[in-house]
Amino acid sequence: MKVYNFSAGPSVLPEEVLQTAAAQMCDWQGSGQSVMEMSHRSKTFEPIIQNTENLLRRLMHIPENYDVLFLQGGASTQFAMVPMNLKKGGKAAYVNTGVWSKKALAEAKKYLQAEEIASSQDKNFTYIPAVNKIEGDYDYAHITLNNTIMGTHWKHIPETGKGLDGKSIPLVSDISSCILSEPLDVSRFALLYAGAQKNLAPAGVTLVIIRKDLVTDNPIDGTPTMLQYKTHTENASMYNTPPCWNIYMMGLVLEWIEKNGGAAGMKERNEKKANLFYDYLDKSDFYFSPVEKNSRSLMNIPFLTREKDAEKAALLNKEFVSEAEKAGLVNLAGHRLVGGMRASLYNAMDIQGIHALIDFMEGFAKARA
Amino acid sequence: MKVYNFSAGPSVLPEEVLQTAAAQMCDWQGSGQSVMEMSHRSKTFEPIIQNTENLLRRLMHIPENYDVLFLQGGASTQFAMVPMNLKKGGKAAYVNTGVWSKKALAEAKKYLQAEEIASSQDKNFTYIPAVNKIEGDYDYAHITLNNTIMGTHWKHIPETGKGLDGKSIPLVSDISSCILSEPLDVSRFALLYAGAQKNLAPAGVTLVIIRKDLVTDNPIDGTPTMLQYKTHTENASMYNTPPCWNIYMMGLVLEWIEKNGGAAGMKERNEKKANLFYDYLDKSDFYFSPVEKNSRSLMNIPFLTREKDAEKAALLNKEFVSEAEKAGLVNLAGHRLVGGMRASLYNAMDIQGIHALIDFMEGFAKARA
Repeated sequence: MKVYNFSAGPSVLPEEVLQTAAAQMCDWQGSGQSVMEMSHRSKTFEPIIQNTENLLRRLMHIPENYDVLFLQGGASTQFAMVPMNLKKGGKAAYVNTGVWSKKALAEAKKYLQAEEIASSQDKNFTYIPAVNKIEGDYDYAHITLNNTIMGTHWKHIPETGKGLDGKSIPLVSDISSCILSEPLDVSRFALLYAGAQKNLAPAGVTLVIIRKDLVTDNPIDGTPTMLQYKTHTENASMYNTPPCWNIYMMGLVLEWIEKNGGAAGMKERNEKKANLFYDYLDKSDFYFSPVEKNSRSLMNIPFLTREKDAEKAALLNKEFVSEAEKAGLVNLAGHRLVGGMRASLYNAMDIQGIHALIDFMEGFAKARA
Repeated sequence: MKVYNFSAGPSVLPEEVLQTAAAQMCDWQGSGQSVMEMSHRSKTFEPIIQNTENLLRRLMHIPENYDVLFLQGGASTQFAMVPMNLKKGGKAAYVNTGVWSKKALAEAKKYLQAEEIASSQDKNFTYIPAVNKIEGDYDYAHITLNNTIMGTHWKHIPETGKGLDGKSIPLVSDISSCILSEPLDVSRFALLYAGAQKNLAPAGVTLVIIRKDLVTDNPIDGTPTMLQYKTHTENASMYNTPPCWNIYMMGLVLEWIEKNGGAAGMKERNEKKANLFYDYLDKSDFYFSPVEKNSRSLMNIPFLTREKDAEKAALLNKEFVSEAEKAGLVNLAGHRLVGGMRASLYNAMDIQGIHALIDFMEGFAKARA
């Protein structure tokens, strides 16, 4: 029996996508091969990667002057690739909205003067700082659009002023945990990256969308060939063997998104789920959301009990996670930095999962009233 | 209908492995989740990665003082990680046996004084140079144990002399295209790496076997966190999300290898196939192998026709590949640097595939006699 999987990633995939993958496993469309067996340079695999890229371009309205890359190494590798490839004058602006932006900032500091221009650390990252415009002599500015651990999300995209070269400062964003959860104006960004294991595909492929003018011949000295964007733009993600199966799975997931209304359809679906859950939390006298209302993520929803005694609260959380698991609601433990619980409601999570979760929560609370 | 897939990688997987993967796709062993949906930090996924590592250690007899890592980025990323992490005095020795060792050497030159201490370029890499012992003030020595494009294989492992620190010079090897094709004495090496997409798993995971004393606190300045071996040894390949599905598939393939006699069983199986094919080539007056007999690979077998006119030969090759494909024998085109054709006979290729290939070749030759 399938469980409801609230994992922050890798996470739930659409059931019909898994069924298609199983049905096509041994022989993809009469090719006599599994997708996992195909030479990446064969005419059998070519339409598969092309289909995935076409779907991404269509669903995200990616302008022609952007390259789409299928890389490896996760967002963590992008934390280094971004400064290594985008460094010019030697300064970059980072907004610190929690664990992942902190990691991006720390990695960037190896390569240039990375400045924390705003932070929400004062309130344990429970809100998005009011940054409307980023100005200064920066090579680029970096934000984490959705914060998987903290459960916050930027509701606006900051403007950027003119950089040293007279052009707008390129805006870079980690969109791992919100990609295609709602429409996004790609043209406002110079570079977007996302680990696939939340809304796109199984873990093992990293999506990069980069404006072509940012692809440089001159990354910093010592940048490994595999960490230069140019290596991959010049070879259409085929400089070496790409993660073919993961790219195929991404195509299947994107087809499912398209069939379900695209980014707008996902937004409607995700708002329904998140609103249902936030409403429940806000009305509850047992649970609550620690995140400010105007900064709340549609994807990742941390929640706590109102128990004030730290020891009792920790015990309660443990009981919650363990009993939820027995009820078929898995991966609800919160991140240790936030505590409590967290429900990730990615695109593929069905609204029935939220109803089941709320029913369980209600029962758990009543038994302790 | 399944084809016989002679691709150099990604390549054929055991049919029963694919069937197991399909059967377990939607619900792995009653967990209610697909392996692709599991949180990598969950107790559901833990036995999967542990099983893969245990099988590798058992099948390869990996000593306890070695770490086993599941990374991303392919052998191409290792070309940079090796010098970035192993540099001490600043010199390394490389043996040039073709395209991939050349690429490894070129990448290493970014970070240290990498010396080509031997090469088989004089005869278009159709043999392995006679290197019995590597001596000098080198931080490490690097060989490519099996050369996928050239079809050569080291039949002996070179000794290494004492380095600057009085210990044996660490021997590093790319074993992407021969891992577990036959027994290998891991203890003779300090570091082994392999892209998985030949004998191990679908593309997207890179195996690294590293002797623990080589894991350094001091990689060269500017080494990205994700490119430091220590990042991954300290976190048991879980610093960030690993390619979970690919690791699971590797486990299934390793179970198949174990059931079929382990590395020794694979050697027997592979020698039968390769001997059959080389014997045919050596007796043929239409085809031949360009590779010297004592350097021939069990895995990758390039072959040419005896047509001397270059233009006619090119046309003949094209006809061969196209007609073979119609007969269900796919991915037989040779690499452009060698020309002609190439048959890769990885572990999962059944001997029936070689019989079918020889039958086809015989017919193709007769029709042109």
